Amino acid sequence: MKMTSNLHPKLCSRSYKKEPTCIEVGPVYVGAGNPVVIAGPCAVEDLDMITETAREVQARGADLLRGGAFKPRTSPYSFRGLGLKGLKHLAEASRITGLPAVTEVLTPNDVLKVSKYADILQVGARNMHNAALLEAVAGSGKPVLLKRAWMATIEELLFASEYVLQRGNFRVILCERGIRTFEPMTRFTLDLSAVPILKDLSHLPVIVDPSHAVGRRHLVLPMALAAIAAGADGLMLEVHPNPESALSDGPQSLGFEEFGQLMRSLESISAVRTSFRT
Amino acid sequence: MKMTSNLHPKLCSRSYKKEPTCIEVGPVYVGAGNPVVIAGPCAVEDLDMITETAREVQARGADLLRGGAFKPRTSPYSFRGLGLKGLKHLAEASRITGLPAVTEVLTPNDVLKVSKYADILQVGARNMHNAALLEAVAGSGKPVLLKRAWMATIEELLFASEYVLQRGNFRVILCERGIRTFEPMTRFTLDLSAVPILKDLSHLPVIVDPSHAVGRRHLVLPMALAAIAAGADGLMLEVHPNPESALSDGPQSLGFEEFGQLMRSLESISAVRTSFRT
Amino acid sequence: MKMTSNLHPKLCSRSYKKEPTCIEVGPVYVGAGNPVVIAGPCAVEDLDMITETAREVQARGADLLRGGAFKPRTSPYSFRGLGLKGLKHLAEASRITGLPAVTEVLTPNDVLKVSKYADILQVGARNMHNAALLEAVAGSGKPVLLKRAWMATIEELLFASEYVLQRGNFRVILCERGIRTFEPMTRFTLDLSAVPILKDLSHLPVIVDPSHAVGRRHLVLPMALAAIAAGADGLMLEVHPNPESALSDGPQSLGFEEFGQLMRSLESISAVRTSFRT
Amino acid sequence: MKMTSNLHPKLCSRSYKKEPTCIEVGPVYVGAGNPVVIAGPCAVEDLDMITETAREVQARGADLLRGGAFKPRTSPYSFRGLGLKGLKHLAEASRITGLPAVTEVLTPNDVLKVSKYADILQVGARNMHNAALLEAVAGSGKPVLLKRAWMATIEELLFASEYVLQRGNFRVILCERGIRTFEPMTRFTLDLSAVPILKDLSHLPVIVDPSHAVGRRHLVLPMALAAIAAGADGLMLEVHPNPESALSDGPQSLGFEEFGQLMRSLESISAVRTSFRT
Repeated sequence: MKMTSNLHPKLCSRSYKKEPTCIEVGPVYVGAGNPVVIAGPCAVEDLDMITETAREVQARGADLLRGGAFKPRTSPYSFRGLGLKGLKHLAEASRITGLPAVTEVLTPNDVLKVSKYADILQVGARNMHNAALLEAVAGSGKPVLLKRAWMATIEELLFASEYVLQRGNFRVILCERGIRTFEPMTRFTLDLSAVPILKDLSHLPVIVDPSHAVGRRHLVLPMALAAIAAGADGLMLEVHPNPESALSDGPQSLGFEEFGQLMRSLESISAVRTSFRT
Repeated sequence: MKMTSNLHPKLCSRSYKKEPTCIEVGPVYVGAGNPVVIAGPCAVEDLDMITETAREVQARGADLLRGGAFKPRTSPYSFRGLGLKGLKHLAEASRITGLPAVTEVLTPNDVLKVSKYADILQVGARNMHNAALLEAVAGSGKPVLLKRAWMATIEELLFASEYVLQRGNFRVILCERGIRTFEPMTRFTLDLSAVPILKDLSHLPVIVDPSHAVGRRHLVLPMALAAIAAGADGLMLEVHPNPESALSDGPQSLGFEEFGQLMRSLESISAVRTSFRT
Repeated sequence: MKMTSNLHPKLCSRSYKKEPTCIEVGPVYVGAGNPVVIAGPCAVEDLDMITETAREVQARGADLLRGGAFKPRTSPYSFRGLGLKGLKHLAEASRITGLPAVTEVLTPNDVLKVSKYADILQVGARNMHNAALLEAVAGSGKPVLLKRAWMATIEELLFASEYVLQRGNFRVILCERGIRTFEPMTRFTLDLSAVPILKDLSHLPVIVDPSHAVGRRHLVLPMALAAIAAGADGLMLEVHPNPESALSDGPQSLGFEEFGQLMRSLESISAVRTSFRT
Repeated sequence: MKMTSNLHPKLCSRSYKKEPTCIEVGPVYVGAGNPVVIAGPCAVEDLDMITETAREVQARGADLLRGGAFKPRTSPYSFRGLGLKGLKHLAEASRITGLPAVTEVLTPNDVLKVSKYADILQVGARNMHNAALLEAVAGSGKPVLLKRAWMATIEELLFASEYVLQRGNFRVILCERGIRTFEPMTRFTLDLSAVPILKDLSHLPVIVDPSHAVGRRHLVLPMALAAIAAGADGLMLEVHPNPESALSDGPQSLGFEEFGQLMRSLESISAVRTSFRT
C-alpha cells in the first residue's frame, strides 16, 4: 500500500511506532483489543434526557457517553445545540454514571471551555481540514476523536491526525463515518475498507460511526457488526430515549431496546473475532 | 426506504414476493441462511490449474467453483481469456469435484455455448445495463449471477434484475462488488450497506465479491467477514494456486492457505450470525 | 499528462497519429475546425415528428439528425423505442432533408440492420465497455459515435475507442456526456475538462452532449456554449417539436425556438474561437 | 429546480432579492456584467515577486490581485505561507498598483488582522463548512469570496453563504473551484453547470477558479473560456513569475505570457457573451 503524495504522514505511521496505540480514558482503554462503544444522543436536549440516556446505555454495556453541545449544521436556521448549558448537562450525566464524556468542539476559541467538561474532544467531519482547530485540541492534552471528512481520502485523514501528533499529543482516535458517493439510498457510503487499511498504515485506534453514514435505524445494526468484523476498535452510536421526537438525527438514532439488541449481537461477534485474530 | 423513480422494480421486490428466494444449484442452496462460498481463479489458465484449484478450494469448504473463460478487459491488448477451451476446462474441473461452475458470459451470441458448460451464468459489472444480454441469459433457464456495475445505484441493480425476472427466470443472485469513488487506496469502495438494503427491498439472495473491490489480498479477509456480518448470503472470492504469477488479478487473489484461513474465520462468524438472527 | 495503466491506448493516441482525424459523413466534416451540430429527438415517435424535426433543425443550422429507434432504459417497463419502424422513419427524414442520420445500436445482432438505415452508429454510455458491440460496429465500416460511460475515466474511454480502431475502423467520434457525482441538482456532472484532455491525448474528434448531463432545458444553452469554448468539435442536442409531451427525456429537450437561439449564440462563439485558435 | 432540504437558504435566493448583487471593491465592480479577473500567485513568497506579479497582471488587464499569506495544507510539513509578513507584502503590492487585494483567512482569530491588509476576505474550500469563520468574516464588513468545498453540493454552498448574509453582510462572491470525483487526470472536476444553476437560484455573483480544478497549466485557458461562456462573473487565476520554481501549485500556475494570451481570448469571448445575453 503506497501513499500518493511526496510528503508522508510520519508520526501516525506504523514505521514510526510499531505497537498499536492504546488510549486510556478514565476506566476505558481504546485500542486494547476489545471493541469500545460510545453511545448517546446527537445533541444534548436537557439534563433529564442525557442522564436517562447515560444510565440506559451504561446498563446495556456502553463504555463512553456522547452528546453534542455545539452542533455543526449545514443551515444556520437548524438547531445548533445548547452550548455551555449542554456541556454542563453532559458533564453531570458523566459524573453520575462514571461514563467518560465525548463531545464535539467547533472552533479554537471553545477548546478550553469544552476541555473542562469533556474527557475526549471530538473534531467532526466538517473540521478535519481545520488546522487551527487540530492544533488547538492537540494543546488541550485531552484525547482527540478525529472523524474522517466525507470527501477526504484515507491519506488525508492520516495527515489531519499528524497535525495533532506533531504538537506532542499522541492520543488520537480515528473514526470512519462514511464518504460521499453517488448512491442516494444512504446519506453516506460507509467505507469499511478504511478500517483494515488504517490499522495497517497507522498505530492509532480506529472506530466506526455507522449511524451518520447509513442514516436509517434498521441499517445501523448490520453495519455495526460489519465494522467490528472488519477489525474496528470500537463504535460510535446515536441513541435517544425517543428517536421520533429527537431535535436532530432522529431517523438514524437507536432506541434503548434496539441498542440493547445491538450490544448482545456485538458481544458474540467480538468473541469470535478475538478467537481468530489470535 | 423509498425508490427514486416513478416506475419501480416489481417482480424482484418484497412486496411482490415476501419470502426470500432460495436458489438450488446442484447440491448447493443459495439464500437458504448459510453463506455459500464461490471460489476460483479470475481466469482459467489451463486444465491443471483449474482442476487443482477446484480440489483445493473444495477441501477447504468452497461450495461452487468460479473461473473466467471470456474476460471483459478495459484494454483490447490485455489477456481476454481462453474462450471455449477455458469453458471445457472449467466444466471438467467441475465434473471431477462435483462443484457447480460459475462463469461470465459477455454477449448474447455466447449464451447457448456457455450454458452447455456452466451451472450459473454471470453477468459482470460492465454488462449490468446490457438489456439484450440480460434477456438472453434469462432465456437460458440457468441461474444468473448479476453483478452491480461500479457506478450503478442500488435501484438500478434491482431494475437490471427485473430484465431477467420479467422473462420468467426468477433464479437471480445479486452481487455487490464495489462502487467507484474518489478513494485511491482501493480499486473500488465496497458498499456493504447495499447488503441489508437489498435484502430489505428484494427477495433475491445477495452475495459479495470483496476481491475486486479492495484489490489487495490482505484486505480480502476482513472485508469478507464484514460482508457476512452485514448479512450477505455468500461470497465470491478469487483464489489462485500461485497468485504472483496469475495472468490477471494476481494482487487480489488468495493462495490456498489464505483461503483456508478465511474459511475457518468465516465458520465462526456464520455460527454467531445464525444465533442472533433467529 | 500520464496514463495510469501499463498498457496504453495506441492507435487513438497523438503519438501514433499527430494530425487531427477529420471524419467525412455525406456533406459534413467532423473534426475540421468548425463545430458540427447533431440535433433531434431522444426517440423517433412517428414519421411526422421526425420529419418535422429534421426540417426545423436544418433550417436553424443543424448538420446531422439524431433520433433513437432502440432505446436503452434503466427499467424494462419504460418506452424502449419503435425499433425497425423507427429506423425507417429516421432514414426517410434523413433522405428528405439530406441530413446524415445518427442512431444508437444496442447489440451486435442489430449492427447490420442499423447500418442499412443510419450514417453514423452510436454506442451509448451504457455500452462503452461492451467489447463485442464495439467490434461489431467497427466491422460495419460506418463512422462510430462513442459516448463516455458515466462511470468511465478518460483513459477508459480511449481504450474503448481502441477496440474500434484496432479492427481497422478509424472513424470514431468521442463524446463527453456527463459523469456521475454526488451533486443532485444535475442528472450528471458535465466534465468539460475532458474535452481539452482528449484533444491533447488523441487525434479523434470530440463532441459534447450537454442535454443528458444537465437534464434541464435552460441549462443546455450555457453548457453548449461552454463546450464549444473549451474546444469541442461539435454538440449533440435533444430537440423535440413539443418537449412537454415527449415520450422520453422531455425536460431536457429544446423546442425549435430555443434551438434557434442556441444556434445563433453558437455562431458568434465559434467565430471568436476560430480567431484565437489560429 | 428544487432544493432537497426542508430548510431553504433564504437571503441568498432570487426569491428574496430579484436583482443581481453587484459588489464594489475599490474601482472594481463584481457582478456588473463584465467578467472580472483576479490574478496572482498561490502564495506570496517575497515582496519583489508579489509586486512584480501585480504589475505584470495589471498590465495585461487583471482587476484584482490574489496572494496567499496563510495557506491551508493537507500536510503539516508543507509550506504554510509567510503569515503576517506575507500580508504586508500583498498590501504593499496592492498599494503600488491600485489593484484591490484578495487573500485567504483560516481562523476566526485572524480575521481582524487580515482585514487590515486585504480588500476581500477569502474563505477557502476546506473552510466552507466552518460556521465560526463564516460568522467572523461576516462581521468584518469586508466582501467575502466563498469557495465551494470539493465535497459540497450546490445547495450546501448556498447555505454557507447564508451564514454570512444572516449577519448582515450581503457582499458575498461565490466561487466554483472543482469537485472531487473518480477521474484521476484532473485534481478536481470543474463543475461548470454550477455556474448557471447558482446564477439561477441566487442573486450573488459567481466566479470560477479553473487553476485548482484542472491542476495543469495548459488546461487553464480552455476551462477559463468555458467558464465565461457558461456565464461566470469572473475568474480567479494562479499566475507566477516563474511557475517552475513556485513554492506551491507551480504546475497549475500561468506565466505572464500565458496569462496575457488568456486575457486576449477572454476579451473576445466576453464581447460575444454580452451581445447574445442582451
